[in-house]
Formats: sequence, C-alpha cells, structure tokens
Amino acid sequence: MSLLFKNLRIHQILGSNTNVGKTIFATALARASAARNTPVYYLKPVSTGGLEDADHGHVMRYVESGTVHADCLFQYDEPVSPHLAAKLKIANKTLDQIPSDHTIVDSIAGCIRKYAETSQRYSHVYLETAGGVHSPTLSGTSQADCYRPLFLPTILIGDSNLGGISSTISSYESLLLRGYIIDAILLFREDYYRNWEYLDQYFAEKGIHVSTIDPPPPRLSDPAADHQSTQNYYNNLNAADTGITGVIDHLNGCHDKRIEELASMPKRTLDTIWWPFVQHGLAKTEKDVTVIDSAHSDFFSVYQPTEKADQPSSLLIPEFDGSASWWTQTVGHAHPSLTLAAARASGRYGHVMFPQAVHLPALNLAERLVRNGPGKGWASRAFFSDNGSTGIEVALKMALRAYATRNNVKDTDAKHLGVIGLAGSYHGDTIGAMNACGDEGVYSCEWHDAKGFWFDPPTVGISDGKPRITLTPALRNLVGESSTPAPSLSWIYDIEARLQTPLAAKYSSYIQKALGQLEREGHKFGALILEPLVMGAGGMVFVDPLFQRILVDVIRGQPASGKYANWSGLPVIFDEVFVGLYRLGMESAAPLLGVYPDISVYAKILTGGLLPLAATLASEPIFQAFWSDNKGAALLHGHSYTAHAVGCEVANEASKLIDTLKTGEEWKNAQESWSDGESRSNVWSLWEPGFIHEISKLKNVDEAMTLGTLLVIRLKSGSDLGYISMAALSMFARLKDRQDMCNFDSAAPGGASFTTHYRTLGNVAYFMTSLNTRPSLIRAMEKKIRDILKEA
Amino acid sequence: MSLLFKNLRIHQILGSNTNVGKTIFATALARASAARNTPVYYLKPVSTGGLEDADHGHVMRYVESGTVHADCLFQYDEPVSPHLAAKLKIANKTLDQIPSDHTIVDSIAGCIRKYAETSQRYSHVYLETAGGVHSPTLSGTSQADCYRPLFLPTILIGDSNLGGISSTISSYESLLLRGYIIDAILLFREDYYRNWEYLDQYFAEKGIHVSTIDPPPPRLSDPAADHQSTQNYYNNLNAADTGITGVIDHLNGCHDKRIEELASMPKRTLDTIWWPFVQHGLAKTEKDVTVIDSAHSDFFSVYQPTEKADQPSSLLIPEFDGSASWWTQTVGHAHPSLTLAAARASGRYGHVMFPQAVHLPALNLAERLVRNGPGKGWASRAFFSDNGSTGIEVALKMALRAYATRNNVKDTDAKHLGVIGLAGSYHGDTIGAMNACGDEGVYSCEWHDAKGFWFDPPTVGISDGKPRITLTPALRNLVGESSTPAPSLSWIYDIEARLQTPLAAKYSSYIQKALGQLEREGHKFGALILEPLVMGAGGMVFVDPLFQRILVDVIRGQPASGKYANWSGLPVIFDEVFVGLYRLGMESAAPLLGVYPDISVYAKILTGGLLPLAATLASEPIFQAFWSDNKGAALLHGHSYTAHAVGCEVANEASKLIDTLKTGEEWKNAQESWSDGESRSNVWSLWEPGFIHEISKLKNVDEAMTLGTLLVIRLKSGSDLGYISMAALSMFARLKDRQDMCNFDSAAPGGASFTTHYRTLGNVAYFMTSLNTRPSLIRAMEKKIRDILKEA
Repeated sequence: MSLLFKNLRIHQILGSNTNVGKTIFATALARASAARNTPVYYLKPVSTGGLEDADHGHVMRYVESGTVHADCLFQYDEPVSPHLAAKLKIANKTLDQIPSDHTIVDSIAGCIRKYAETSQRYSHVYLETAGGVHSPTLSGTSQADCYRPLFLPTILIGDSNLGGISSTISSYESLLLRGYIIDAILLFREDYYRNWEYLDQYFAEKGIHVSTIDPPPPRLSDPAADHQSTQNYYNNLNAADTGITGVIDHLNGCHDKRIEELASMPKRTLDTIWWPFVQHGLAKTEKDVTVIDSAHSDFFSVYQPTEKADQPSSLLIPEFDGSASWWTQTVGHAHPSLTLAAARASGRYGHVMFPQAVHLPALNLAERLVRNGPGKGWASRAFFSDNGSTGIEVALKMALRAYATRNNVKDTDAKHLGVIGLAGSYHGDTIGAMNACGDEGVYSCEWHDAKGFWFDPPTVGISDGKPRITLTPALRNLVGESSTPAPSLSWIYDIEARLQTPLAAKYSSYIQKALGQLEREGHKFGALILEPLVMGAGGMVFVDPLFQRILVDVIRGQPASGKYANWSGLPVIFDEVFVGLYRLGMESAAPLLGVYPDISVYAKILTGGLLPLAATLASEPIFQAFWSDNKGAALLHGHSYTAHAVGCEVANEASKLIDTLKTGEEWKNAQESWSDGESRSNVWSLWEPGFIHEISKLKNVDEAMTLGTLLVIRLKSGSDLGYISMAALSMFARLKDRQDMCNFDSAAPGGASFTTHYRTLGNVAYFMTSLNTRPSLIRAMEKKIRDILKEA
Repeated sequence: MSLLFKNLRIHQILGSNTNVGKTIFATALARASAARNTPVYYLKPVSTGGLEDADHGHVMRYVESGTVHADCLFQYDEPVSPHLAAKLKIANKTLDQIPSDHTIVDSIAGCIRKYAETSQRYSHVYLETAGGVHSPTLSGTSQADCYRPLFLPTILIGDSNLGGISSTISSYESLLLRGYIIDAILLFREDYYRNWEYLDQYFAEKGIHVSTIDPPPPRLSDPAADHQSTQNYYNNLNAADTGITGVIDHLNGCHDKRIEELASMPKRTLDTIWWPFVQHGLAKTEKDVTVIDSAHSDFFSVYQPTEKADQPSSLLIPEFDGSASWWTQTVGHAHPSLTLAAARASGRYGHVMFPQAVHLPALNLAERLVRNGPGKGWASRAFFSDNGSTGIEVALKMALRAYATRNNVKDTDAKHLGVIGLAGSYHGDTIGAMNACGDEGVYSCEWHDAKGFWFDPPTVGISDGKPRITLTPALRNLVGESSTPAPSLSWIYDIEARLQTPLAAKYSSYIQKALGQLEREGHKFGALILEPLVMGAGGMVFVDPLFQRILVDVIRGQPASGKYANWSGLPVIFDEVFVGLYRLGMESAAPLLGVYPDISVYAKILTGGLLPLAATLASEPIFQAFWSDNKGAALLHGHSYTAHAVGCEVANEASKLIDTLKTGEEWKNAQESWSDGESRSNVWSLWEPGFIHEISKLKNVDEAMTLGTLLVIRLKSGSDLGYISMAALSMFARLKDRQDMCNFDSAAPGGASFTTHYRTLGNVAYFMTSLNTRPSLIRAMEKKIRDILKEA
C-alpha cells in the first residue's frame, strides 16, 4: 500500500505516450538530484528489450558513478509490450508463471522499503514505468491500475510531438480517474508545435506545474560522438537555467507540503468538523483522528507519524476497512469501473430533475430492481431517494397511506397509527424513521416519538460450537426453556420445514395473543416494519427467521402463499438497507423467509459503496393507493437530487460487478465450505465455519455468528450497556495498534502488515468485508481475531 | 444541441492520436456505405494544411463520384494545430476574429440540418475531426469539449502503433468523461504489436465493439502508382470480408437501437417508475414523460418523436432547464470540471467512513464553509449529511438539544417543544423537517405533526411597475393599509435604514404581542427556523426582510449587535438550502439581514448541481451543548455516506467555479443594470429590471419579482389553490410546445430554437437559471415570457 517516507522523496514517472522522453527526464532528474549531493534510487520495475531495455543503461551511463543506485525488477528481452514479452516467454517455456500485479507491487514496495532502511540521508527515488500510462504490464493490467495500490506521487511526461496536446491531456485524465496526485508535467520545449505553451496554460488553470527542457540532440551514428553529444546535452541542462533544478525544488516542495498537510489535518479536523455519532468530548486529541490519505480495495491508507527517527518507516500505513465503511463497500474502495460509471453519467447528464422525466441510468436501475432484482415477483415500482433513512420515510408514507385509505382512517386518527416492529430495530436517523423504532433511548432525540409496538424477538447464534435459538422471557414461559439447540445453521434457516415444529405454533399463538391485547387496549397500527434476518445498528442481532416469518403471516391474517397479489392486514415493509444486496450472501431475505414484502428499501451496497442513493420498491396495490386525479393525493416526497444520474449509473455498474462475483470461484468455494455434507447450504459466509465454531467455544465469547460478509462476536459481559458500552472496544483495541499489526505478506498488496479498522456496539464486535475481499485477507483477519480472543 | 434523425445516421470520427488513420477509415466507411447505395455526407469542420488538408481531397479521390457529398467549414493553410493556424491568421491580419466554439457548433448543426432536409433517403454522415480527441480546435478548446453540445455518436480510431494501447484507452476515457456514446473503436490490424488483440478483449468487457481493417500499403513516390496501390487497397477492403461492411451493419444497428430505445422509454417509465411529487393519475400517457437523452450547459436534450414524415426534424430537441433542475444547477449540466473533480475523488478514495476520520475533500470543504463561506464570522463547525431535508433534521436536533439543555427541559416536555417559523415555509420531506412546518395540508402525510407556531409574514413584490410591501390581515389592522409602496428594491433591502421606520416598530410590537399570547397559552418553543428572503417550495414567496430581521431580534430578546457570541432566547436556524450560495445573488442572506444564525443549512448548489450533499453549520455554543464524556449525549445522527469524498470534492470545485463568476463580466454587467443611479444596489438579478417592471404592469400579472437567478411571476387569479392549482401551468404550457419554440439563433449552441422546462406552484410560475447562464439566453426567455403574458 501507499508509501510515504519523510526522508525519501519518491516519484513515479509515467509517459503520455511511448517515446516522449521518460528516460531522458529520469536521467536529467537523477543528475540534478545528484548535483545537490542527494542520493538517488532509480527503479525500473519492468523492462523489455529494444527501445526500453536501454533505459536502465542510459541512466547509469550519464550519471556520475556512485550517485545513483539502480534496480530493474523484471527484465524481458523481446522488444514488445511487457504483456506480450511475458506471453512469449511462457510460450517458449522460459517462464513458468506470469508475475501477478500483486507480485509486481510487492516487489516495488519491498525494494523501496529496503532502500529507505539503508539510506540514512534525504534521498530521491524515481520509478520509471514503460510506455504510456495505460500500457499493459506483465499480467496485461494497465500500469495506471496495477501501480495504484502504491499511490505514488506522479510526474507525467508530456508529449511534444504533433498530436501531443491531446495525448498529454488524455493521459492526465486517465491518471486523475485513478486519483493520483500529479506533482508535475514535464515535456520537451519543441518550438514548432509548441505544445508546452498550450499545456502550460491549460494545466495552470488546474493548478498543475508544467516545466520544459530542451529536446535532446539528434542521435549520431558514431557511438563515441553520440555519447559526447548526449553528455554535453545533459551538462548544459544542469548548467543552464532551463528549469530542471527548479523542478527538483518544486518536487521537494510538493513532498514537504504533503507531509505538512497530513500533519496539520488532525488539529484542523478537531477545529472544524462535527462528526456523526461521535462524542467529541471523548475524541478530543489529535490521536483520535484517523487521517485517511487515500483508499484502495479493502484498505485505507492512514497517516501515522513516525516515532523513532532511527528506524524509518512509512508515514502512511494500510488499515483494513473492517466494517466496510459503515457496511457500504461492495467491491472495495476506488474501483475503476465505478469511477468510470460515475464519470460517464456526469459527462452525459450531470444531474437532471426527475419528476415526470426519465433518463437511462434511472430507468435501467428501476427495471433491474423491480424485475430482476430484489423486487422480482412482487414489486411493480421503484421510488428513489438519497439514503436508507429517507428510503424508510418514503416506505412509511406509502404504507400508512395505503392502510389509511383502505380502512378509511381519518386525518387525526391517521397521525396516531403506529407500526409493529421488533425491539432493537434501527431504520435511520431522520425523525420519521426514528419514530418507527422503540424508545431504547440512546438513539433518541428531543422530537423522537416512538409510534408503535415492538416484539422482543428470539435470536440465533453459535455458542460453544453449536447453533442455538435464544428465547426472550415471554417466550421462555411458553416454551419452558431459555434456548434451544439446533442441528445446524442450515436447519435454522429452513423455514418451510420449521413451520411444522411445535416452536412455530408457540410463536404464532404468542404473537396473536399480544396483538389481541394491543387491540383491546385501543392501539391502532398501519404497517409492519422489519429488518429481515439481522438487526444492524441495534446491535447486530440475528433474529430467529422463523419468528419473522410467522409475524408476517399473523399480521396478514393468512398462511403464506408465496407472493401476495394484494396486501392484507397491514402493509409489510422490509428494511433491507443493511441486509440486502448480498451483504448477507443473498440479494433479498424474502425467498429465504418464504414471504414477500409489500414495500422494501435498499441503499448502502446499492451504489457499490461510492455514493448516497436509495430505492424504495412497492407493489402495485401500494402504488394504486396514491393514484387519483387529485394532485394533492400524490406521494408528496422528493429530494433535489432524486434519482441522480451519477448514482443510478454507478448502481447499474455495481450490479454488473456483483453478477460477476456470483458466478466466481471465491463465492463458490465459500459456499462449498458451508455446505451441509452433500447438499448446498441455504446460508453461507465468506468467513470459515471452522473459525466461527472455534471462537464460539472460547471462554470470553458468548456467541459468534456469521452470514455473508458479516462476522459478529458477542462477548460475555456482566452488563450489556448496548450502544454506549465499551467492552468490545477495549477487547479489540489492539487491532488498531501499530505495534501489533496483522502480518501476512500475501494479503495486502505492497503491504507486509496492516492495522484494522473495525466497529463495536456495546459488548459486540463486528467485522465486515467487501463482497470481493480476498480469502487470504479474511484468513489473516481470522487468525488475528482468534489470537486476541485467546490471549485476552 | 444534440441531433438525431431517423433517416440520417451521423457519426463523429475521433482519433486516439494523430496519424492513426482517421481519413482512411472515413474513406473506407464512405465507400462501404456508398456500395450499399446509401448517400454519404462527409463533413470536415476544421482543416489545417499539410497532413490534414489532404483529408477532404483523399476521401473524394477514392470514392465513386456522386456518392459522397463533402463539406469543409473552416480551412486554414498552415500545417499546424488549428488553434495555432487561427492565431497565425490573426497575426497576419488575414482573419478578424477567431471563430468561437459556438460558431463552429452552430455551423456543423446548420450543415447537418440542411443535409437532413434535402436528403430524402436513409443517409450516412461522417464528421471527421482533427488530430486527437483533445486536440485544440480554433478557439483553443479541446475538440471533445467543443463538440459536446452536439452529442454525436462516436467512432474512435484506435492507435495501432507502439504505445497505442495506452493512447487508445486514455482517449476512450477522455470521451467517457464527456458522456459520449461510443459506438465503435476501429484500428489497423497491425501484426507486430497486435494492439487490436489486446483492445478487442479490453473493450469487449465494456461492451464496446472493436473492428480492424488491414493497414494501407506504403506510400509510393510515383503519384500514379500510389493512387493505383491505394485504390487496390480500398477495393480489396470492400471485396474481402475484412469487417468494414460488418462495421456498417454494426453502426446502423446502434442507430436503430438508439431510436428504438428512446421510443420505448416513455412506456417503460410509466411501468416501473414512481416519481417524486407527481400524481401518476394525471401523468399516465407517454406524452407526459420527458425523456432526457443527455444534458449540457443549460439544456436538456429531450426525445420528441417526429410527427410529419415529409419534414425531417431531429428526434432530439433542446429544452432549456428553466427551473435549474429543482434549483440545483450552478454552472450548467455536465460541466467537465465537476466531472473531473468527481472522478478524482472517486479514484483516490471511493467512499471512506467518516466518524472520527477525515479526508482532504471534507476537511477543505468544512474549512471553506465555516471560515470563508456562509459561516464566516459566526460558525465553528460543519456537520455533513445527504440532502436539505436531512440537513434540517440535524439542525433541529442541534437547536432543540441546545435549548433543552440550557433550560433544563425534561424528556417528555422536550418532545413538545415547538418551533417558531413563517407560514408557507418548507424545510424538506422527512418527518422531522415536515414537523417544523405548519399544517397547510398539501405537503402533509399521515405522520406529519406540525410542532410550532408560524407567523403569516408580509411579502415583497413588484406590481404595476413599482415595488411594494404587502401586509397580512393582522398587520393591516395595525398599519391601517394592506400594502405600502416602496421607492426601490434597494430601499426594501436596506434593513439598517428601515429599522428606524414606523413599520419596524409595528412589526416588533405585533411579534411581541403574538409571542406573549402564545406563552400565556402555555406553548413552549425550542428554535426559530426561517428561509431567509424567499420561501421556496411554499410558493416562491419573497418575505419582507425587515420582518425576518425583527423576528430574530425579538426572539433573541435583544437588538442586533452584528454577530452573536452566544445564542439567547431560542437558537436561530437559517434554512439556506434554496436561497444560499448565490442562488439569490449572495452567498448568505445573513449580512443583508444584519443578523447571523446559530445554525444554518446548505445543499442544492453546494455540489454545483451534480450530487446530493448537505452541510449544517453551527456556532461553538451549539456544538458545546453536545460536548460531554457521555457517548449517549453525542449528536446521534449519521448516514452511511456522510461527507462522501466525491460530493465534497465536487463541492470544492463548484466553489472555485463560483469564485470565477463572482469577478466575471456577466455578473458585473447584471449588477450594474440593477444599480440605483450612481450607487451599487444591495440586491441584483440576472434578469433585466426593465423586463421585470414591464411584465409587472400586464393585466394578468399580480406581481413579478426577482433576485439573483430567480424570476417569479404571480398571476392574477380568482382563487389561489396553492400547490395544487394549475393556473400558471396552463398559462405557460406553450413554453413546452414544440410548435411554439423560443427562436434565437445565437442563444443555444447548435440549436436554432428550444422549448422550455419551467415550474409552477399554483398561480405562480417561476423560472430559474444557472449562475452562469448566457445573457443572450435570458433575453430570449424574457422575450418569450413577455409575449405569452401579452397574448394571454
């Protein structure tokens, strides 16, 4: 991952085309650095024959001996693009395996780290790439994508030839799409086309430094004369005031400024930012601020000032995003496909208003969600809003209106319609969403007005190596025990079979009795709202799915008959903001539960973890409740950026990426590991069953549980203080401690070790991966978590 | 603007570098089209000498005579980039003025329209550009940007040379950043570097068609032999099955599919989309759906099926975005700087979670808002959320907690704290934001629970050519008249002077009396919330600013002393979601009102009109009300994508673009037109004062009013039914009628005429521009609006 050393100024040199002078600029820069008595490390990661194999040699030929240390990591003789050179060697059987991007990045990081350790003084590193920014590296991945984990500051060599304005700007834009910091654009001062003149002005407007040097002399046929002529050229560059020394000053300035900026960020943050959900009184020192310099794949690159001057280490360290950034990350941070989708829609539409209008990204997304996504078979409409909370507000407006209209509930009474839900639910932080939750207190605020009744549900977990269902006090009396063991997770989630068990009958009679009592007390309800399978922010509680199924059946006053043509009893809302779209390994929990909602809500994963967007799906009867010729009877809800094209297009792209994962090896392997002997399990996880069972037996663990990407560890603790408890936080604090990093060479590209960003809720610690996190990384996490639990 | 004809398949040909074979591909395509008996129109917009001036001639030399009609619009002899050729002609005084981008686009559109009118049969148009995608055109603008208004489907000619993989992908990405539809990538089948092999696979994954043809034979020195050799080359291309005929099939398929897709969209939309704020029962036919194919600058490009077969016209027509897409648009749609900012942040971070973390885009935005933006001088903190409504929920949570803490209001009582506001306010559609608004009904829903008291405020408008203040019934009794004329708008907004008038004293005593009465009735309040200057969604009502100022003073129980170190009375919230950030010509209304809020909210323009993002600013005493060592006392509000890096970076970029407008000619001219004789007015508008005064005198106009980008026309009508009335809608329906387009050649680039998308609220029609809408376009709108009002 990203490398930044105080005493080591590193730049990668990328070309805006082939043959634009990368090596000449590298040589000139190396000489200028050396002229200041600064040691230089020149690194050519991949070199192929012909034109390119001269690079390393050229640099060494024209620098003073001893001033530059040079390395070339992968050398191939054929004078073609690296991906072809590698293929040829495979064909010739002179190579067993093409080095992976991971290997290349690891090798570069290793070399730079080693150089940092041995270099005592302030030094410069120049990493020269091959061809243009998108020229393929050995595996065929474009260089701009392959080297992205290292996130090195970049020098782009501009193209001074005819057409070079275009290739320079396009190359710049390709680097920008990968988020690179571009410190300078350098090109030859060619005086016929004068590209530098145009580019200087163009990039000045973008705040990017452009410098030129004279082009090299023509190549001479006599080697000695050519050497002398080239030597003179370089000597004159250094002697004359043509800018190369100014470039060094500029690059050094960029390096210093970047470090100063990072160092300044904690204080500046404490001075201006008001964080969500954070008690600032408990996070008031600079060390409490996580400065995220960039992110890639599963990792943040986090600023961490070095403490020991004698042991140089990177000021940036990789931190595993162990809560998938509040459960949003889908295919990892900064995935180029999502960036390109965002750019494409921004370039075509920007944002266009949505009422009575349509654009392809929104239409395609709506059709997918309704017809081929979580709404398949029951939903007829998609209503867009900006986040899970607003999506829930829309769902509540839909459900309450549908109920009030059908049951002829008048205005004042309608204001007092409550919801039926589960205790511990969380539906968002706007007041409407909050009012659909009970009064458990900590999420409350002055205007919170809990409107409804919430059942305390039985839960599911693995304890002492065995799955179990834990009953609540009210159910305990009915059943005669506080928990019942289950043969397997698969069995727990086999709802159709469990509907025939005595427990099902007891759930049903318990729910009916409670509802009868509420009715007698005069309570009125307008909707049932559930987070299927797992209640997230309320404590990562796995609810017994049988209880949720029976609750829906009872509310609808009928046994389930698959999909409902029309709602009965109360409209049923599934809040799948957290659990939906494969977070728990399935697109929607409805097929597993065997009942379909009338309304459901999606967000978080919807955009692949890039942007806010939510969709509320509704069945046709719900939609029809608003249909009239009275404008005031419409669903009067909307946000300025409703169905913004960028979010919708990114969502469509995320959906395509997930489709690929669904059929990939890694999910297949994970599913197999959870299969129940010969049959495939109905539930599965990216975390290993053996690990879950093992930690569930540890003395400090009450329950462990997993589905899909989610791992939940419920610690034994005297008192469960819920959200504000710190039990799990203290237990796992070590994961964020630099001195105790996870240490697995193969897990993080370019990073030998990493800390972990994780989340806790009271005595619960939970970890969450993206949908495509590499198995080796999950294994590394499992090992570390196991160690911590065992040692505690 | 965008052109699409059923019988005319148009493609622009762009090169991924210079010298990649654009002209050879254009010739091959023209010949292949002609071979099918399809007329071809070859258009070279800009041609410069040397290599490039051969293009036109080359095409005509190798096609059968009579099959291809060719045009070159701007021809310059110098064999350099067009921007240099144009500069040279200016220097040589052989040219008076460099043709603007607007002129080039207009000329191209004019030629294509003319060809469409004269061409009876299905024809092909090939527009060949110069150099690479970003090569500068005459003005210096990159071609990819200059031609964007036409939004023509694109053929990208790939680069088959060494390094060509990189330049092809980068060029593709530059086109993607402008939203172009890329129908095909064509390149030579060069067999040493085999770029086509790599690119074919690379783009197959992106669903983009790649085709190859053999490279042309080497150039021969003997002209006759060269001609014969080239002729043979083209003959063999057509004869052999090498793909060029397949390309024609593919391109024709793309054209047909695009038209079919557009035609299918209205029905598909009516089948799956649930629109915000729309009564679907009143919008149930395909004609009720506005299909937006793309957008650029101030225009949507809207699908409109041709009705007369004998009169070919574009299936896409420009529609002026006359409400700035729900008041969000700032610098027009699809501004490349905003796209690049979004891409940069997406590439560097994706989204990273925000609690106890920070990244540069969020930090820079917070600092700007608090220190150098609307919070300057009073705010200390920025809290981010996703939209105006959530920003208001946060503001309410802040204000109510601060009030409850200081006044020791207990839990149950706190739930009943109301707000003081103005009747007709709108703060968003989530329940908390709705509860801060009165019970006017139409925006209501089942759970709406109006919590507070709302003053019916005096309003400001221009009637019969004169500014006036209109009083409400309660104030009329006090003042003795229903409206008072004002010498000028400048005078109305000169609050400090007006504080000394008798009306000020009457406002003050009226407010104090009303508050006293409320107190005696036992009502309790926790916040004052106002939309300064204009109440937006509630009816575009311009409130007398003096009333708002005095309301704040009375609530605070003290005369204003500029900026407040600490709040008194009730915390004051300014909802500047609509009015802020220069929508009304000023960053915040606070300096004009002469009082600063304790909390304020921004959204809409914040991201320049691209993405949802909101910021709630708070003073230090408000922040301190949540500071403790109890985690549960924190501000427990957050959304998954809080402070998403993409939105914050776009917001920072939008802010820079606005800074440029602030000092530009167009704002200066507009400000001068509103200046009051020698002194500069304290308020100004992009709409002309003469126009406003003129329409305010028309018999069907009750009041007209404007500030900044906003024009409001309040029609005379018997009964004001508010939101659900259709009066203004019928009056201005003509603006969306294709037969009655605004017709001003110079206003819309490439479009001789355009319809207008506008909005109405009951008897109010309002129009809104971006902050950078061209004056000529606003003049065109003014003329049309004047005509409609006069003719009605």
